[in-house]
Amino acid sequence: MSRVLILSKRADDYRPLVEAACLPGLEILVSAATPTDALAMGEDFDVVFGEPSLIRGVIAMLPNLRWVQSTYAGVEPLLDPTLRKDYLLTNARGVFGGLMSEYVFGYLLLHERHMLERYRAQQERRWDRRITGTLRGKTLGLLGVGSIGTVLAGTARHFDMKVRGFTRASESCPDVNAYYHCPRLLEFASDLDYLVSVLPNTSETVRIVDASLLAQLPAHAVFINVGRGSAVDEPALVRALQSGKLAAAVLDVFDQEPLPSTHPFWHTPNLLMTFHTSAPSIPADLARLFIDNYRRYAAGQPPLHVVDFEKGY
Amino acid sequence: MSRVLILSKRADDYRPLVEAACLPGLEILVSAATPTDALAMGEDFDVVFGEPSLIRGVIAMLPNLRWVQSTYAGVEPLLDPTLRKDYLLTNARGVFGGLMSEYVFGYLLLHERHMLERYRAQQERRWDRRITGTLRGKTLGLLGVGSIGTVLAGTARHFDMKVRGFTRASESCPDVNAYYHCPRLLEFASDLDYLVSVLPNTSETVRIVDASLLAQLPAHAVFINVGRGSAVDEPALVRALQSGKLAAAVLDVFDQEPLPSTHPFWHTPNLLMTFHTSAPSIPADLARLFIDNYRRYAAGQPPLHVVDFEKGY
Repeated sequence: MSRVLILSKRADDYRPLVEAACLPGLEILVSAATPTDALAMGEDFDVVFGEPSLIRGVIAMLPNLRWVQSTYAGVEPLLDPTLRKDYLLTNARGVFGGLMSEYVFGYLLLHERHMLERYRAQQERRWDRRITGTLRGKTLGLLGVGSIGTVLAGTARHFDMKVRGFTRASESCPDVNAYYHCPRLLEFASDLDYLVSVLPNTSETVRIVDASLLAQLPAHAVFINVGRGSAVDEPALVRALQSGKLAAAVLDVFDQEPLPSTHPFWHTPNLLMTFHTSAPSIPADLARLFIDNYRRYAAGQPPLHVVDFEKGY
Repeated sequence: MSRVLILSKRADDYRPLVEAACLPGLEILVSAATPTDALAMGEDFDVVFGEPSLIRGVIAMLPNLRWVQSTYAGVEPLLDPTLRKDYLLTNARGVFGGLMSEYVFGYLLLHERHMLERYRAQQERRWDRRITGTLRGKTLGLLGVGSIGTVLAGTARHFDMKVRGFTRASESCPDVNAYYHCPRLLEFASDLDYLVSVLPNTSETVRIVDASLLAQLPAHAVFINVGRGSAVDEPALVRALQSGKLAAAVLDVFDQEPLPSTHPFWHTPNLLMTFHTSAPSIPADLARLFIDNYRRYAAGQPPLHVVDFEKGY
């Protein structure tokens, strides 16, 4: 018998979705939106489903904890070395690829189609016939080809683009035309039209997008970051944009969020920001992920998407 | 033996591409950017390749004319009932689908992702976390499912959308979930999330997007026109947007182009205009189309994409 705690800002969305699944062996299901409210309901939970930043506040107090399902892909708050690791941590995978694909290709098309320039022309009542660019034939470089990168590669191929993938070792996505691994990072980046990072925050990804990598990109290239802000050397990115050595950047994630009001990104040219909104957690998607994984857990099978505490993803 | 005239604003781009193909039976190949320059080179041409608006100015003076290949999809200038029809007219098809797809889905994503709102937030230094929408699960209605509509349907399916197609009679695209024909136009439009017109200008398409069709769309719907401006009742569209009965419109084509400076579209809310730039004619694509069709012509085969002067496309 399982006792499940839902601990999420959107607990009111998740709870009816989970209840409707009539999960096997479920003894108790409670939900809370804050750690304080959660602990007021007891400590005897073996399963927790929710946001890592909230779960962090209760994790030391749950003696029978066996499994945590995160509603997010990024689980940094639970990777702190001072925290316990004697439970299964699973993250959200396979649910954000479509949303990330819409985001990345939406912004690539905004750039190629000069949508902001055309919008300004309209405001000035100018019939602006500047020629548009196209994705077709362009080369997209993916920093990271996991479940999200795989979907991005598929969309790139749909638009007749070429795809390079930079990964630790895997080469399993059929839509990637050429794979590159660790010592060949600069070769991977040379002549890319677009560089997209979907990397998680790990010791190996910190500042991987630095001055030397940015210098490999052509001046017409566009950089998009939908992974983690820690992957980017932010001052180096500002310099590349200010000097015109990079055409544009679109950033969803930052070293510090919300971005401090004094950060140079607010007034860096050709930089668009989207405030960590690229892939919202859609309750029905996340509830389905939890329900599927709970059935595996209840049947004694290993859950899917287990996080390796050492690798960090 | 053929005598070929290239008559195009981009004649200097097309000529070397055609010359490089070493076409069989080609006796003479000349190029001009205006009708006057063209006629100065003689009248003994059996083949003309170029823009319909320019070709219109020479067509009466070419006694041996047998075939015209248009660089555009729209050939209205050559459909005037006062003009000769004793030659084969072929238009540009199969080359614009990818570009149109980038345009349509780029603007749908601009809308779902609130890209303009997010851009304004950035200018005002606001950390704007409004939730984004998604294409997934939405329903796209295509007015016209020819070579361009077919590509749009494929991209819609790639993004997990549902697709309705309104056509005269054809039902050949596998990515369309449901077809509708003439008496069912209003049923086709009801509950669409997005309505996209790729219709040519014919007697059957004039003002097909009128007040009654717009009234069928939900208030959150978006209308995109990449076909011809004549398909739209422009005052009815202005009223729908002003009254909030339609969320947004994106228009590439207009009844009168360039749009007159006094036209209400310049200050209609939630209306974006792109000034007939959605699918630029890329010289390499059009030259390839001409070269392939010329080889058929030289071999005595019928060329591809023959326009029916009665139907108008």
